[in-house]
Amino acid sequence: MRRIPAYVWLNGKVVQSTRAQVSVFDRGLLYGDGLFETVRAYRGRVFALKEHLERMGHSARALGYRLPRLDWEKGLRRLLAANGLLATDASVRITVTRGTAPPGLLPPPRPSPTVFAFALPVPPNLARDQRRGIAAACVPFSRLRALAAHKLLDYMPAITARRLAAQAKAQEAIYTDRGQILEATTANVFCVRGGALFTPPLDGALPGVTRQVVVELARAAGIAVHEQPLLVDEAESADEIFLTSSVVEVLPVVRLNGRTVGTGSPGPITRQLQRDYRQFVDQAPRG
Amino acid sequence: MRRIPAYVWLNGKVVQSTRAQVSVFDRGLLYGDGLFETVRAYRGRVFALKEHLERMGHSARALGYRLPRLDWEKGLRRLLAANGLLATDASVRITVTRGTAPPGLLPPPRPSPTVFAFALPVPPNLARDQRRGIAAACVPFSRLRALAAHKLLDYMPAITARRLAAQAKAQEAIYTDRGQILEATTANVFCVRGGALFTPPLDGALPGVTRQVVVELARAAGIAVHEQPLLVDEAESADEIFLTSSVVEVLPVVRLNGRTVGTGSPGPITRQLQRDYRQFVDQAPRG
Repeated sequence: MRRIPAYVWLNGKVVQSTRAQVSVFDRGLLYGDGLFETVRAYRGRVFALKEHLERMGHSARALGYRLPRLDWEKGLRRLLAANGLLATDASVRITVTRGTAPPGLLPPPRPSPTVFAFALPVPPNLARDQRRGIAAACVPFSRLRALAAHKLLDYMPAITARRLAAQAKAQEAIYTDRGQILEATTANVFCVRGGALFTPPLDGALPGVTRQVVVELARAAGIAVHEQPLLVDEAESADEIFLTSSVVEVLPVVRLNGRTVGTGSPGPITRQLQRDYRQFVDQAPRG
Repeated sequence: MRRIPAYVWLNGKVVQSTRAQVSVFDRGLLYGDGLFETVRAYRGRVFALKEHLERMGHSARALGYRLPRLDWEKGLRRLLAANGLLATDASVRITVTRGTAPPGLLPPPRPSPTVFAFALPVPPNLARDQRRGIAAACVPFSRLRALAAHKLLDYMPAITARRLAAQAKAQEAIYTDRGQILEATTANVFCVRGGALFTPPLDGALPGVTRQVVVELARAAGIAVHEQPLLVDEAESADEIFLTSSVVEVLPVVRLNGRTVGTGSPGPITRQLQRDYRQFVDQAPRG
């Protein structure tokens, strides 16, 4: 049962959710003109916050604005505390919009961004999905590739893709363009073929923080990693497939487009990277 | 100088803009999960409101929700009055989101939509642009074609396209896909070739209310109208090009991709349809 969490972090203050409001002239609402990040908090420790804020700041600058200066770490910790999530695993969604401005397609010259964040317990089925794997289905469209580097607010492509996936009895959808795998709606995609990892390049995929960690962990473990265009056909005949994101971490895909992937169970390289990722998270410094 | 208007119509009430706020858990803000319409008000008379609300209602149903029952006509008239716009020409943007719900990609089973509208005077340069025509530039991407029928909140493709157009010294951008013209960022596209009108079919373009009116006016004037795929090459060599939307009505394009269109001035069919459209608006019943 999904619920609205009790407290929100809004423009630097923890406030009750009933009071967490933004102007109808916020450009995030009027035009989808904003960015978000989802980070994981492991018993109150927010993992890789710096990397997520760097990506968000990079996108904001590319789009012509800047993140406000805030004590993000302290703010998110107070948010977790207010919602009783310090002792458990949670996901935290951070949203930054270009802020409130007079209406008009072109952005204002001096934007004053809106920032808010909320935290939720991790989905109850996640541990089971990580152990058993999920089904995924390819959809014949993608987010706008010219903006694929940015984690923009608009999730209608994702909602549409997930709905099509659900019709195909799959939990996650993978965007494709002219027969090439790009990314999943909320994760990056990896395949294992002949003992090596393959993942699509970043011209049509979000530069995932978890994607980068997994690439580095794989290389440290002596596994070759190839960032190169990946055809749907190649994915369908791969030995293993997995998805990466802050929330799902390393999530096996055991069915793709109705076909069994490999043996139908999470493969050895996927399981190794799941262990390595958890170990990396456990050893990472705070913040 | 753009300004935030003084009053907003929010969930059935006219309120001061400073008090017009929505929850940060509104799905319009979190996911771009909402729709909008822009209608014209001619001295307090809202034109074709019924058609706009029908389109919006159709999209909402296709996406799994319904527009709330409101006295839209009376509400918008009170909005115009509160903002001192009864005696002038204005544009009114109506926004409907799927409303506030617990976070999650999949929509809630029983949504409670948020509705708000604001009104602005028409842009001061519009009359000049209608008389002289504007420059447009094609961009090699489009909105998500699977959702092209719906006027969704996400305007990042439009903002990106307009930015590229501005770099090419053009005021408006035209989305294309594999060499085919689809639509402009805020308008439909028509070409005149050999005395006939050509406009792209609706599999990649918004079903514009003004587009439909113009098709009917043209046919009533004995001008053939062909809804068929339109190549960029064909548009570049057209005798006339114009855009249609509630705000710009019939807007001549006199330069496309840096090339002069026809004689470089608005052509005879464009000018005739501008006159016919204004006459149709003047004679239309209220509401």
